[in-house]
Amino acid sequence: MTHVAVEFYRSAWQQDLNTIIPLGRLEEMADDGEIGSVAEEHYSFMGAADPVTMEKSARQAAARMKQDGVKKGGDPFVFGRGGEEAQTLVQAGIRLRIVPGISAGIGGLAYAGIPVTHRDVNQSVTFLSGHDRTGAMPSAIDWQALSKGSQVIVMYMAIKHMPDICAKLIAAGRPPHEPVAVVSNATTADMQVLETTLGTATADIDKTGIGAPAIVCIGRVALMRQCLDWLGQIDGGALRNLDPLEVRGLSETG
Amino acid sequence: MTHVAVEFYRSAWQQDLNTIIPLGRLEEMADDGEIGSVAEEHYSFMGAADPVTMEKSARQAAARMKQDGVKKGGDPFVFGRGGEEAQTLVQAGIRLRIVPGISAGIGGLAYAGIPVTHRDVNQSVTFLSGHDRTGAMPSAIDWQALSKGSQVIVMYMAIKHMPDICAKLIAAGRPPHEPVAVVSNATTADMQVLETTLGTATADIDKTGIGAPAIVCIGRVALMRQCLDWLGQIDGGALRNLDPLEVRGLSETG
Repeated sequence: MTHVAVEFYRSAWQQDLNTIIPLGRLEEMADDGEIGSVAEEHYSFMGAADPVTMEKSARQAAARMKQDGVKKGGDPFVFGRGGEEAQTLVQAGIRLRIVPGISAGIGGLAYAGIPVTHRDVNQSVTFLSGHDRTGAMPSAIDWQALSKGSQVIVMYMAIKHMPDICAKLIAAGRPPHEPVAVVSNATTADMQVLETTLGTATADIDKTGIGAPAIVCIGRVALMRQCLDWLGQIDGGALRNLDPLEVRGLSETG
Repeated sequence: MTHVAVEFYRSAWQQDLNTIIPLGRLEEMADDGEIGSVAEEHYSFMGAADPVTMEKSARQAAARMKQDGVKKGGDPFVFGRGGEEAQTLVQAGIRLRIVPGISAGIGGLAYAGIPVTHRDVNQSVTFLSGHDRTGAMPSAIDWQALSKGSQVIVMYMAIKHMPDICAKLIAAGRPPHEPVAVVSNATTADMQVLETTLGTATADIDKTGIGAPAIVCIGRVALMRQCLDWLGQIDGGALRNLDPLEVRGLSETG
């Protein structure tokens, strides 16, 4: 890792932002001591409805990205359109560097004390976008297969379609009592966590008013928050259960 | 984010290490200006065969973790046993702080120019451990459901069982020509990338000798490396194809 990269990573990390950034711009910034001042604007040029507008918009976006770089929250390659934006840059002849980030589906849940994998629960975890590019239910998901294939499901941008999603998972055989955690505004001072179940999630979301931006975790790993809510503990809360999965209790006499 | 946390994150990031760390120890280190000197030892106390040994070993590990903290590569909560280690700490009455990290399945692939999601390919991605705690094929995976449920599959520690895994996925209906990328020693100077297919992966792994530690990516997103191999480009390589998914070409006349 070069010095430039280290310095840049530090800055990106400090700001909780992650980046696709043209290489020339990165070096220029390092030379100028300007790192950290890259525009935070998000170029959502792929939203255009027709190919001609998209292409025009992409060319304009590439020009702006060349000027300013692109910064994004989370990881640019996890439901972040980073692949598309990076492709636009290279198609415009711009060389780039990609800085991975902490994706909310992992880091946001860690702040709620929830590990996305646990050897007593799952050997796989599926990350899912809760809506497609039009805002509708994700159309390409086989809910039956998803339900059987993944003991833990982590969903981004899923609040809007939670009633449908929970119904589909229950219809596909997931138990209504399966633990669910909803984490909104993860890692910020406004972070809220709702612990619920597949069967009660919709009503509980309505009741509590917990809203986007939120990550939803479905699966027994969500129970781990009972013993790993380290942020709540720092704030003076007590841990509720030191063995929520009921497999790793330490005896009093050990 | 507190100053202590920022400083600690910087240090952890610089070293490409991520951490479950007792809170007292973190503050002590910050006071002493010692950040960065935490032991890198990985306490694999959960490997013990029987409950009594496991318990004894866990108590000893907790004592050592209290002393030294725990540092791990990648993200502690993604196939990192972080949940188990953190639980051992809280069961021993030790308060902790969890620092999320960049998981190899995301960051390692980004260094190979492969986004784990792309709106033209997938609305979900499944991360999978390539072996269970005994080293055998992961026993709890429903390969049929996995095959139908996830357009992109990212596997950790899967090299050993690749012949079996590829055979199971093909038997479950994934096409033998489906793109596969194997990335070993991701982000290091020894990084190697093998581009292959489900049908030829086993032979190509044998032929090239590419080995662990490796991340395997199965799915059409692997093609994106043809246009996004930014690290290769920095080293003087040429990009091979500016529109590998054949959906986002920019015309010459646009």
